[in-house]
Parts: sequence; C-alpha cells; structure tokens
Amino acid sequence: MPRAVAGPEIERLIQLLARVPGLGPRSARRAALHLIKKREQLMSPLASAFEDVLGKICTCRVCGNIDVRDPCSICIDDTRDPALLVVVADVADLWALERAAALNARYHVLGGTLSPLDGIGPDDLNLAALVGRVQGGTVTEVLLALGATVDGQTTAHYITELLREANVKVTRLAHGVPVGGELDYLDEGTLSAAIRARTSF
Amino acid sequence: MPRAVAGPEIERLIQLLARVPGLGPRSARRAALHLIKKREQLMSPLASAFEDVLGKICTCRVCGNIDVRDPCSICIDDTRDPALLVVVADVADLWALERAAALNARYHVLGGTLSPLDGIGPDDLNLAALVGRVQGGTVTEVLLALGATVDGQTTAHYITELLREANVKVTRLAHGVPVGGELDYLDEGTLSAAIRARTSF
Repeated sequence: MPRAVAGPEIERLIQLLARVPGLGPRSARRAALHLIKKREQLMSPLASAFEDVLGKICTCRVCGNIDVRDPCSICIDDTRDPALLVVVADVADLWALERAAALNARYHVLGGTLSPLDGIGPDDLNLAALVGRVQGGTVTEVLLALGATVDGQTTAHYITELLREANVKVTRLAHGVPVGGELDYLDEGTLSAAIRARTSF
Repeated sequence: MPRAVAGPEIERLIQLLARVPGLGPRSARRAALHLIKKREQLMSPLASAFEDVLGKICTCRVCGNIDVRDPCSICIDDTRDPALLVVVADVADLWALERAAALNARYHVLGGTLSPLDGIGPDDLNLAALVGRVQGGTVTEVLLALGATVDGQTTAHYITELLREANVKVTRLAHGVPVGGELDYLDEGTLSAAIRARTSF
C-alpha cells in the first residue's frame, strides 16, 4: 500500500479510477490529476454525465440491450428491418456490430454464452424471450453473431436446435482472414476456414 | 464519426471518458459499458467521489499543491522537516516523490518549468512565493527535484541564481543507473553521469 499523497477524497478518487478497465493504479493517479486540473472542462461534465446515466439507464425488456429508454432506441427504430434478428452474447458485441454499420437489424442480447465450466446453463441466458420473438412471426432470419470460441459455438448450436421448429433461417458470421490481417500471423483454423470458404475474384 | 450505438446520454459519457488520459475512443466504450454494468459498485461511488473532490479541491496558497484543504495536508504536517524544501515542477512530481517515501520534507510546486520555446518565463512560475519561503529563515536546504531535461535544468540554474543571496544549500537529484535498469539499454549521458558519480562498494 503506497503512502497517501493527498487527502482521503483524492485517494478515494484514485482507488475508484483504478478499477475502470484500461486504467491501472499508476494511470489512475495520472487520470485523477488530469481530472482535477481540468475539473471545469472534464470532471464536472463527467460527474453530470454519470448522474444522467445513473438516473436513466435500464435494460430493454424486448432485447436485453442497455439504454436510457425501455424499449431501447434500436427496438423502437422503425427504419430497421424487423425480419432480421441478430443474436449477440453481450451489449459490447451489439456496440461493435453497430460501429461496423453493416447491419440495419434488431438485436437480441443473451447476456452471456453457455459455459458448463462456469456453470452458465440455458436458464441463465435470455433465451425464452428469443424464442418468443421468433415465434411472433415477423422474423425470417436469425443471425447468430457469437464468438468463434467453444462457448460461442456451443451456444450457436443450442439456439439452432431451439429454433428448429420455427420457420426461420438461422445464419452465422463468416470465418476468414481479418481485414488488414497478415497471413503469416494467422492461426491454422482461420486459414483453413478462409480456404474452404474462398470466393471467386 | 462512428454511428451512435446508444442514447445521447451514453454517447456523451463515452466521449468524455475518451478524454481521460490512459483511455482512448475504443477503451472509453469498454470503460463506459463496464461502468454501466457495475453502476452500483463503481459508477455511483465514482460520481460521488467526483462531487466530493469538485466541492473541496483547492490549490495550497503556501506551496501550490492540490488538495482538499488550504494549506494542504503536507504543509500542515508537523512531523515533516521544515528545514528541507523540495522544489518540483508539477503536482504529479510531488506525488511521485511521496510514493517513493524517501523524503519527509515540505514541497514547493512551480507549476511548470522555464521554456522559452513554449513562452513560459519566470513570471509564469510560482517563484516569488519560493523566494519568500526561503527568506523566511527556517529552510536550510532547497532540493531542486526537476527533470533531467533541458527545460528542467534551465529552471534549476535559474532558481540557483535566484537563491544565491539566501543562506541555503541548493541541491539536485543524483543522475545514475535507474534501479532495475539494464546497462545496455541506457543512453550515453546517463552512463557517463553514473561513472562520474561512482561510489565505493
């Protein structure tokens, strides 16, 4: 435990900042000092942004997304294709797909992936609501945008079985060479998948 | 400008977090999501830490340190040696020296270093107060804990001249091999300084 360099209020601020992902104990000190120096331009707006979010944040009852309204901005967006439903494990994945801006669909956030080792079973995921949405009849394609990990693929297989009776097309993301990726840094599994799924030029 | 992935309140939070040193646009999203998920355990305490610091923070009128009281915790600490005054450029340097816990002295924060290129002259630094403190008579040694940079050394020379009339010993930090440092990674200037200042074993 290093010696306290300032009053307990500042020490507490540093300790809390150190728990923010991306900051460690050392960078938390630097961040705290910067926030203190820029208190009018940065700390004060950040404090009110926190209050704003804390007062309004909620989980969308339709899709499980996190937003300041329920249903969320995406669920109430009429310009999105209601026929395509994209299943993601986490809100972070939804955000990543939205940044790619390659989809104009609705989402369904599972809240994790099946993981027997971590004791996460089907009842721990937002699966009943998914079946309900698909059975509603508007959805024609369910895109399983899950990680290419064992847990992600197990979850994908489970959902495919779950939706076998429903009259929908179930798809998954393509495997292949990441854009900007060098071949000699790629693992064999990715290269094999990219070769199998090769397309004409 | 990437597409907004959530309501304006969350986007604003991400934009503000991206301005915190140590976080970039990508890690700010990750931090925002973590803060939202851990809102009870982390975002809420952080919001109140911000309010606490914002309400109390001030600059010490004696030494220029930043604290929640004026004079600061260090200036009112009677257990510190009043004869040794450590001059630093910035509060960050004061914090670094305090973490090292090798001193039990008072500090004087200049608020920068002389930098003709950046237009920072003697009047921009907290120098008049330094001379006043030294002339007070209690201080017997002024340790110039300034960076081993051109600006740091220029400032050190300027202060040495400024205090020539005062009856105090002016010292500076030793140059040498950093603890844990490998010789073959060190620059020639550091190695030469370490050789010149070699000590018997």
